[in-house]
Amino acid sequence: MAGTLSDTDVLVSEVGPRDGLQSIARAMPTYLKHRWIEALAAAGIREIEVGSFVSPKLLPQMADAEQLVSEAIKVRGLTVLALAPNLTGAERGIAAGVHKLSFPVSASREHSMANIRMTPEQAIEQVRMTCELCAALPSASRPTVEVGISTAFGCSMEGSVSEDWVMRMAKHLVEAGAASVGLSDTAGYANPAQVKRMFERLRCEIGDHAGAAHFHNTRGQGLANVVAALDAGVRTFDASQGGLGGCPYAPGASGNIVTEDLVFLLEAMGLRTGIDLDRLIAARAIILEGLPGEPLYGNVPTAGLPKGFVYASAARICHEPAHSS
Amino acid sequence: MAGTLSDTDVLVSEVGPRDGLQSIARAMPTYLKHRWIEALAAAGIREIEVGSFVSPKLLPQMADAEQLVSEAIKVRGLTVLALAPNLTGAERGIAAGVHKLSFPVSASREHSMANIRMTPEQAIEQVRMTCELCAALPSASRPTVEVGISTAFGCSMEGSVSEDWVMRMAKHLVEAGAASVGLSDTAGYANPAQVKRMFERLRCEIGDHAGAAHFHNTRGQGLANVVAALDAGVRTFDASQGGLGGCPYAPGASGNIVTEDLVFLLEAMGLRTGIDLDRLIAARAIILEGLPGEPLYGNVPTAGLPKGFVYASAARICHEPAHSS
Repeated sequence: MAGTLSDTDVLVSEVGPRDGLQSIARAMPTYLKHRWIEALAAAGIREIEVGSFVSPKLLPQMADAEQLVSEAIKVRGLTVLALAPNLTGAERGIAAGVHKLSFPVSASREHSMANIRMTPEQAIEQVRMTCELCAALPSASRPTVEVGISTAFGCSMEGSVSEDWVMRMAKHLVEAGAASVGLSDTAGYANPAQVKRMFERLRCEIGDHAGAAHFHNTRGQGLANVVAALDAGVRTFDASQGGLGGCPYAPGASGNIVTEDLVFLLEAMGLRTGIDLDRLIAARAIILEGLPGEPLYGNVPTAGLPKGFVYASAARICHEPAHSS
Repeated sequence: MAGTLSDTDVLVSEVGPRDGLQSIARAMPTYLKHRWIEALAAAGIREIEVGSFVSPKLLPQMADAEQLVSEAIKVRGLTVLALAPNLTGAERGIAAGVHKLSFPVSASREHSMANIRMTPEQAIEQVRMTCELCAALPSASRPTVEVGISTAFGCSMEGSVSEDWVMRMAKHLVEAGAASVGLSDTAGYANPAQVKRMFERLRCEIGDHAGAAHFHNTRGQGLANVVAALDAGVRTFDASQGGLGGCPYAPGASGNIVTEDLVFLLEAMGLRTGIDLDRLIAARAIILEGLPGEPLYGNVPTAGLPKGFVYASAARICHEPAHSS
């Protein structure tokens, strides 16, 4: 099932090793993180956010980012992403050889200060400096800079967030040199009507620079929001295996949307991901080896695939006319 | 928040007391079922499937259907629905004074035989006889007959189910006298592309007789399918409080879509349900009083409402222009 860029319709970007693991206080051993990344890639995942170049004092569970990047870039066909909160983090990522740097820039001032101790404007400035640094690098070692606008759909501190402000930020970020700017529902506030409206507007404002949708499933709306984003033309989705990152003290309040359920949604809808669900589900065992007892979410891993389930790529070959029959 | 028909956009039909409780072997005491129904109605739920007129030998936990109907019809403003698998059950429901009878008619032959020991054609014949019986009743005591086509999106025994056959069944059922015919994803097989296609086609085939969407969350796709059904014009959704009906031996494999999460989705999208989420969530306590330790699902009850959340009805009064700002 592993696909190349040309035979897939949707890019599922796995953020579990970063967004998932950074929410868990205990650290997963580095060799198991790497084995997990390899297993995800073998299942057909083509892009993985492997870690975060934050201060190891703040997030010791992310201290192995260099090591993970340097190993992951050897995995054939895999695009290796890492988060950088600022120029310093970006420099570490570049030195490690990362393919893509992802910057979280929060639309909410309160969240921005709490998260990275910078105003949104200061965070945009860090993106600009990073893009300038990257532009000076030889093309072979030049990472792509991607931004996700955090709290784009609302903030648990500030409540509602101005859509106009989010769009202005997106334009500033493209001017600063970001290759793509996506929208992130950090607090699980988004609804499908808002998602469709905002991603359509994002495309109007910044064209092909419009980037990924990043949804959390805090209020169970994650896949509903994916349907709306698909409708608005989004073709890159962040997701976390097992919905990793959910608070273990709040059952059901999972973190990111669950990769397994997302891949099933897309393939069932006839959108090719290049991912094999059985192999993907099998990779959950590695998380539990590294983090025994950690609660994993997702319905497809429990329920299994429907009888006679056909992947989108196979459906196109064998059953193309069936849809209109 | 309790609304009348005129100030709501979407009808949420609560099926927990029937679809939920019939999946649980132990019986909830009748007085608590009734208290639950009253609490749901007080939260603004306008239609409840209170029980099933099946043989009490088959489902002893549904043996109190007569009593529940005769109590529930006293609750002001509430439409009282009950399931009838055949003419005999319908007669019991009519005698109890039910407002609506819901018939499950399965598109899958294997599922139909296993579920009600009739072929789909025989089940349609039971609907016809029931509609004839109802037509002969004085209008004040004449229930509406609604049908949900079970396994309309696929069957765990037969696998895929012919869409043409589902549409032919819908037409036969309308000819047999059914006031509305909806589509039910009994096995959790549906995907949003299929949902949109089939509900659009249903409306083409049977016009305003096109009825409710009934989704199970077996593979986590329930609310994603709701978004697609809304897009196809569906405005009645079945749901179960706490996702009741999930197998306690398969965590995450919940039953129907969770009423609490559905109501949040709709209200957040600006669609009025007339339901107050705080009062709805409070009603969960009655389930747990009647069925101690029963696992309840749903993310909104855990996460709570977003800061500054505004119900659709209030949004229309106060913030109508904000959407385009």
